[in-house]
Amino acid sequence: MRRGLFVGRFQPFHNGHLEAIRAVLGECEECVIAVGSSQKSHETDNLFTLGERIEMIYETLRAEGLAQRAIIVGIPDINNNSLWVAHLKALSPSFDAVYSNNALVKQLFAEAGIKVKPLKLVKREDYDGTAIRKSMGKTKEWEKHVPPKVKEFVARIDGVERLRQIAEGDKI
Amino acid sequence: MRRGLFVGRFQPFHNGHLEAIRAVLGECEECVIAVGSSQKSHETDNLFTLGERIEMIYETLRAEGLAQRAIIVGIPDINNNSLWVAHLKALSPSFDAVYSNNALVKQLFAEAGIKVKPLKLVKREDYDGTAIRKSMGKTKEWEKHVPPKVKEFVARIDGVERLRQIAEGDKI
Amino acid sequence: MRRGLFVGRFQPFHNGHLEAIRAVLGECEECVIAVGSSQKSHETDNLFTLGERIEMIYETLRAEGLAQRAIIVGIPDINNNSLWVAHLKALSPSFDAVYSNNALVKQLFAEAGIKVKPLKLVKREDYDGTAIRKSMGKTKEWEKHVPPKVKEFVARIDGVERLRQIAEGDKI
Amino acid sequence: MRRGLFVGRFQPFHNGHLEAIRAVLGECEECVIAVGSSQKSHETDNLFTLGERIEMIYETLRAEGLAQRAIIVGIPDINNNSLWVAHLKALSPSFDAVYSNNALVKQLFAEAGIKVKPLKLVKREDYDGTAIRKSMGKTKEWEKHVPPKVKEFVARIDGVERLRQIAEGDKI
Amino acid sequence: MRRGLFVGRFQPFHNGHLEAIRAVLGECEECVIAVGSSQKSHETDNLFTLGERIEMIYETLRAEGLAQRAIIVGIPDINNNSLWVAHLKALSPSFDAVYSNNALVKQLFAEAGIKVKPLKLVKREDYDGTAIRKSMGKTKEWEKHVPPKVKEFVARIDGVERLRQIAEGDKI
Amino acid sequence: MRRGLFVGRFQPFHNGHLEAIRAVLGECEECVIAVGSSQKSHETDNLFTLGERIEMIYETLRAEGLAQRAIIVGIPDINNNSLWVAHLKALSPSFDAVYSNNALVKQLFAEAGIKVKPLKLVKREDYDGTAIRKSMGKTKEWEKHVPPKVKEFVARIDGVERLRQIAEGDKI
Repeated sequence: MRRGLFVGRFQPFHNGHLEAIRAVLGECEECVIAVGSSQKSHETDNLFTLGERIEMIYETLRAEGLAQRAIIVGIPDINNNSLWVAHLKALSPSFDAVYSNNALVKQLFAEAGIKVKPLKLVKREDYDGTAIRKSMGKTKEWEKHVPPKVKEFVARIDGVERLRQIAEGDKI
Repeated sequence: MRRGLFVGRFQPFHNGHLEAIRAVLGECEECVIAVGSSQKSHETDNLFTLGERIEMIYETLRAEGLAQRAIIVGIPDINNNSLWVAHLKALSPSFDAVYSNNALVKQLFAEAGIKVKPLKLVKREDYDGTAIRKSMGKTKEWEKHVPPKVKEFVARIDGVERLRQIAEGDKI
Repeated sequence: MRRGLFVGRFQPFHNGHLEAIRAVLGECEECVIAVGSSQKSHETDNLFTLGERIEMIYETLRAEGLAQRAIIVGIPDINNNSLWVAHLKALSPSFDAVYSNNALVKQLFAEAGIKVKPLKLVKREDYDGTAIRKSMGKTKEWEKHVPPKVKEFVARIDGVERLRQIAEGDKI
Repeated sequence: MRRGLFVGRFQPFHNGHLEAIRAVLGECEECVIAVGSSQKSHETDNLFTLGERIEMIYETLRAEGLAQRAIIVGIPDINNNSLWVAHLKALSPSFDAVYSNNALVKQLFAEAGIKVKPLKLVKREDYDGTAIRKSMGKTKEWEKHVPPKVKEFVARIDGVERLRQIAEGDKI
Repeated sequence: MRRGLFVGRFQPFHNGHLEAIRAVLGECEECVIAVGSSQKSHETDNLFTLGERIEMIYETLRAEGLAQRAIIVGIPDINNNSLWVAHLKALSPSFDAVYSNNALVKQLFAEAGIKVKPLKLVKREDYDGTAIRKSMGKTKEWEKHVPPKVKEFVARIDGVERLRQIAEGDKI
Repeated sequence: MRRGLFVGRFQPFHNGHLEAIRAVLGECEECVIAVGSSQKSHETDNLFTLGERIEMIYETLRAEGLAQRAIIVGIPDINNNSLWVAHLKALSPSFDAVYSNNALVKQLFAEAGIKVKPLKLVKREDYDGTAIRKSMGKTKEWEKHVPPKVKEFVARIDGVERLRQIAEGDKI
């Protein structure tokens, strides 16, 4: 197949995401990486801006020799599920398959007549973004679950300090 | 009175709503049915699109011989309570009375100088939208609390399967 | 065919619109009347609120004995053409055909795989909304081009005075 | 009367505005100054941010000994005329009279049952914001039509240079 | 310092806020009072409109002889933390220092290169807006924690009755 | 320098854009291509969706061997110039220089303390997007001013037919 689409929030980009992209690239020539909730940042569950997420994904894919087969696009929340498939299609290069384990993504594409392929995950603990975020700022455990370039990037922008600060309260 | 306004989300349209519309039409010539949160769908608490809700209400009212005395209008959330009455008035034909048991609706109209009339409900269990949604996808209990045309419509669009899918998670 | 969709702004509802609805109802059982730019009002080109437009359409259709075969829905501008078809479909009951002479509407539906049927218009001058609006507030010429119920409605809400006032400037 | 409301865009605040505020304060104890299109800036017709406009108004009113009788509020465009009066009322302290020569403002308040008082202007050329903006960046003519504190403020933030730059094009 | 900025929601304005403004005015000539979530009202946690909040703050500051050293500005939620500092700067006169104990405000300004000063609070119970709101509508305890003008204002607009009504449900 | 940012709307991507990217890559290791008005499409001046523009840019850069040094990001209009720089920074990987000839872009970055570098253009006629769009649908002249991959892409999605259709009217 020519192009597969993979949807996630990538807060942060972790080993599970990288494994999933490899799986997509096993079946497709190119992978479109759709970064959801792209307008969110500086929240405990959405720590990084879209630009920061693009940077950490891109640097990792380069280091892995996969950059030339990937296209990253940002997808802001539209808060209207009936528009979401059209919204994503307008923001992305055309694609031939969608890969996701998200229940709502599967249902919305199914109603649009597009079958979503499941992602087979190997190391479950690498796929738990919530656990990775919880560990950040407390222990160094999280560093095992992200690619080296992500670890470097988070250090460069002082991401752990950001998380520690807003852990006290992420509402104004 | 000429026109009464009745506000609800109609997720789904159930027997309690139908009984309420009959009560409004006992006092008014016409009933404006204002469908709130009209932009929402494919959520466990907001399963159907506005178009789908209009379709199930309209088909029921026709079957009951009430369609010519009803006007259905969609009211998207405006997320700004101080604008809500003006917002509703701009989207609806003029009306002479408002019928609602919703505390916020009552307060907002009261501050705009419009008295809201309460709806006297007979069969309480028919009015519990939350319970009806919970039952859908598990048992057939919910079918007793909706008009026949709603049951048919939900089957036609495979609504129960939609609910089952997104019950696993209705966030992207 | 079961349901035909007819899109317009209806500023105001005129004889041309009524003739078009009759034409749709000659081919379909029901006509969905989609009222575009529904959020606009009090502009020289968009004089009436959605509620006012619904009221004048509905009263005319009743007087003509067509109300029970029509469903009126409001379509706010979305300012994003790639989403417009999905937006309209979410706000409307399902339909089997679209009727429009609007170039953009035709193109957007064509890209979504839906063929738009043209409307054959008989009395050209009845179809010129811009000319009708220009005449309002200056002469009584416009009254010939709208159904009696629209004339009555405009008088009831003092619509000509509204137009005269804002003709001096419709920006704040 | 207790409080009068005066609506304008104040791009920039000029002698005509100051004279109008004096006129309002001749009839009312306090004047609410509602700054419209508050979200706009860096356009040839909307040069200054809301914060900059508040600063130039406030410094002028202080220099004139009027600050303690004025309250400045920002009113973003809502792009929905049927909501504008409710929008303004939610953003402003309560008021007993509205002063404006704007045709749309007069009509919207009239429909809400509030009579708008006209502003009697003496020196016409002081009231022509468009002419003042045109002069800025070309000649020093504009400086005669604004209070001294506005002239100082524009110099401090290099406002004339901003205008000169974007005069070449104020779209991205 | 010339101008200090103080950010809060002021639901309602209480003695703790007044003490904080005095503290800012001990270090700065003027205090900009930035009223956050300005678009919200008629919610149990956001009871008053921006206009109402401006009115209660302004009347208190006048009674205290502080009005001429304060500027009140409204800051609507932008739901995009990466834009919040730019958003606030566009809506406010320029300022030389920010005062806040809010974790997210501190982090966002820190990333923008602006150090936030903490507010030293004396009487802790005067600073607990949540407790004050909880007491309203139940006891008269809350009246001890707000300035006299706020108590008067809340009575004038029947604010306690508003809270009691929507305590039953503040969603439509 | 590490990363240069280049802003445009790319409707369509033409030889002038490609030459500009080469110029940026002559001074920087990487080029961020920021695609403005990303939410627009199906207008005579904004013909292609963001996804379509990404596709034509990406395919051209690959054919030219430049893809691995470019990152494409979409920038929706924010309609608030005071937020635009923060908006762009949140959506883009970090950059060390900005390249643009747009007057407003230059002014907004200048006020944010970032100097914008001009783009030196060689073949003027290759840079005239407006002329290229005007030619499309009438003659084949435009094909000379775009890279081969753009010509192929436009043919593949039937872009000339889209333009011809909406040339009759691009408003609903």
